[in-house]
Amino acid sequence: MTSAANWAASQLKSMGFKNVQIFPTAKHPVVFGELLVSPQIPTVLIYGHYDVQPAEPLDLWQTPPFEPTLRGENLFARGASDMKGQVIATMSAVKAILSNGHSAPINLKYLLEGEEEIGSPSLPAFLEEHKDILGCTFALNPDAGMTAPDLPTIVHALRGLAYFEVKVFGPAHDLHSGLYGGVVHNPAIVLSDLISGMHDAHGRITLPGFYDRVVSLSEEERQEMLRLPMDDAYYRNITGAPALWGEEGFSPVERVGARPTLDVNGFYSGFIGAGSKTVIPSWAMAKISMRLVPNQDPAEVHKQLRQYLTEHAPKTVTWELQVFASGAACLTDVNHPAVKALALAQEAVWHRKPVYRREGGSIPVVADMRNILGVESVLTGFGLPDDNLHAPNEKLHLPTWYRGIETLIHFFYNIAESNVGKGAE
Amino acid sequence: MTSAANWAASQLKSMGFKNVQIFPTAKHPVVFGELLVSPQIPTVLIYGHYDVQPAEPLDLWQTPPFEPTLRGENLFARGASDMKGQVIATMSAVKAILSNGHSAPINLKYLLEGEEEIGSPSLPAFLEEHKDILGCTFALNPDAGMTAPDLPTIVHALRGLAYFEVKVFGPAHDLHSGLYGGVVHNPAIVLSDLISGMHDAHGRITLPGFYDRVVSLSEEERQEMLRLPMDDAYYRNITGAPALWGEEGFSPVERVGARPTLDVNGFYSGFIGAGSKTVIPSWAMAKISMRLVPNQDPAEVHKQLRQYLTEHAPKTVTWELQVFASGAACLTDVNHPAVKALALAQEAVWHRKPVYRREGGSIPVVADMRNILGVESVLTGFGLPDDNLHAPNEKLHLPTWYRGIETLIHFFYNIAESNVGKGAE
Repeated sequence: MTSAANWAASQLKSMGFKNVQIFPTAKHPVVFGELLVSPQIPTVLIYGHYDVQPAEPLDLWQTPPFEPTLRGENLFARGASDMKGQVIATMSAVKAILSNGHSAPINLKYLLEGEEEIGSPSLPAFLEEHKDILGCTFALNPDAGMTAPDLPTIVHALRGLAYFEVKVFGPAHDLHSGLYGGVVHNPAIVLSDLISGMHDAHGRITLPGFYDRVVSLSEEERQEMLRLPMDDAYYRNITGAPALWGEEGFSPVERVGARPTLDVNGFYSGFIGAGSKTVIPSWAMAKISMRLVPNQDPAEVHKQLRQYLTEHAPKTVTWELQVFASGAACLTDVNHPAVKALALAQEAVWHRKPVYRREGGSIPVVADMRNILGVESVLTGFGLPDDNLHAPNEKLHLPTWYRGIETLIHFFYNIAESNVGKGAE
Repeated sequence: MTSAANWAASQLKSMGFKNVQIFPTAKHPVVFGELLVSPQIPTVLIYGHYDVQPAEPLDLWQTPPFEPTLRGENLFARGASDMKGQVIATMSAVKAILSNGHSAPINLKYLLEGEEEIGSPSLPAFLEEHKDILGCTFALNPDAGMTAPDLPTIVHALRGLAYFEVKVFGPAHDLHSGLYGGVVHNPAIVLSDLISGMHDAHGRITLPGFYDRVVSLSEEERQEMLRLPMDDAYYRNITGAPALWGEEGFSPVERVGARPTLDVNGFYSGFIGAGSKTVIPSWAMAKISMRLVPNQDPAEVHKQLRQYLTEHAPKTVTWELQVFASGAACLTDVNHPAVKALALAQEAVWHRKPVYRREGGSIPVVADMRNILGVESVLTGFGLPDDNLHAPNEKLHLPTWYRGIETLIHFFYNIAESNVGKGAE
């Protein structure tokens, strides 16, 4: 981690960035640097992370994860796509702009963290503490990706998250299933009943009022989503599931990007070792989380889950509900000047309009930047769906990546030419 | 274990038993001894086990588990009630009979195993191999208990067991719940649906044909069961459950003793550590077992569960079903001469008729003795429901235990006087 942070700082210095610092945090440091040309032009804060997922299982890698290897058009290495390759794409674009003594057309700042893969725990406090040096017109976050090599993509929405743990308590201690089977309500069965009741036969979530605030997709946006080449076969192939499932009346892309979902992330009760033990467990636990869409409020969803449990848990058990994480969904206006500048840049390189995509995941840093710094993030990136993120044999498709660098050069000049946030700082 | 087996063998020798042997098995040895008086009189095979449950958690014991301590009318020690105390009750009865040079009125054999608490894995093979020395008129198994200190009890029925593991498989690997929540059927939710559907709103099990062979209780037996002092309050108190639950239309005693039940003994899926992980698990598992009553067939129940899964599992998942244990229910004829001899003995000591009780648990050795040796077991014992079996502060109520020894003396003479199995050997 230290050598990655040091390397990033030295790159920024060699590019002529000023005020380059490695700020310690509770865990891994944040690298900062800035190249300020004029207070009269826009400032872009480029976000990135230099940490990567663990490389295990190592035996599944065709070449060592930390020895970048070129095979065909792809560069294989841990972090090639997520997201060292993306950070380097932005640096390459900036270097190209600055070559031959040219000046940058906009002000630039870098914020590179080392904790993204563990949920960015130190970032909110860092943003709070260093607001003074982080001022910008908007943030560029290249941690999203392309939909296909020939399909430039702008992510304009992220889902929110509400994550809970539910515990159901029955008898005071584990019981002998022979001596007490028939008089005690089994907590694992009660929890199964509760989980089972959370969806109806149409794949809709039954928590009271859950859909009340959900913003419907416009017909225009549904049409735009049809452009995404992610159909049933795509999702079956990439997940390995025998068949798809989901809320009736919506396409897979709509269900993942624009509809709220509820999943059990894990459950546990009683004896789970090899063989058999004839026990009635005294308690059962499930991790249950929802992905939220605009305008759902995680705090309201918490109340809805609590109300559901109050109404449906039988008197034969007691229960506890704990909140582990919550964050609202994000939606960026596709008419924001920075988004338009990115779309024009992509069109200039790929000779086709980008698709606007709603991403099903949540990127907490986007909400943090909005809430703490008051700035929007423009989300893009030049990785591909088959890049094996978080998995063995992670790779980066170099022809797409080179187009990405070209796009970023156009983007920075487009920003300079547009009227976005002129004089904002 | 070795010193317990040696001690039991030396006791038998000192009581004048012949052919005393300690037979090694795959795990813990079996102690055998016999006192044969005449081939013209009945032979009782006394079954017992010298192993005990682990004593942990040790800090909850008021006095050390392996230093027997007298407090009031109770003797506290691991195994005091389950079942070293019961074995010693039979030995004390035999010693009393043999004192002053008297001869036993019946032939006696002992079979003391050391694996009861781990499911008697070596016993069936031992019974097969040593049929020649184990011949008897019937077996006495004092591993059951009393219902209350003033209520002598004969257990005449045990439930059977069918134990399964069900696994549900969804996507090929764990998925990101943001990127794929909405297109993949969550295996933990599917398994919850399947478990939830196994009971109807009346607490009845929904497996196809599950109740077809269940023998109804006679009105006479339901009246007899009303004599048992185990009502709702009793079961609430002993289990600590907030409220009882079970099949509608039956009392708690009937539900535990004479009705089949289905429990989840454990389930697992996905992430169950502290905190949150936003994963869609690729699979989920549940241990599911049924307690069976006469005349249900465990093999048929296996087919019924398979049929249920075939009919109810959605096409979005695949599943596997594994059988871990199965055994039929046992029902001893309460008019068997040995049962009558025991009832008369209990009446002589307690001055009241015993209650006939169906026990909800399964004692595999009873089925093994029936299947391999072809003999019935008479089940009794002088432990009490509050003896803390398998728990800290296990105890034996000595006044009840002394009455038990007196009962056994009567019982052995009653057997000699009855015509049960005369000349059977």
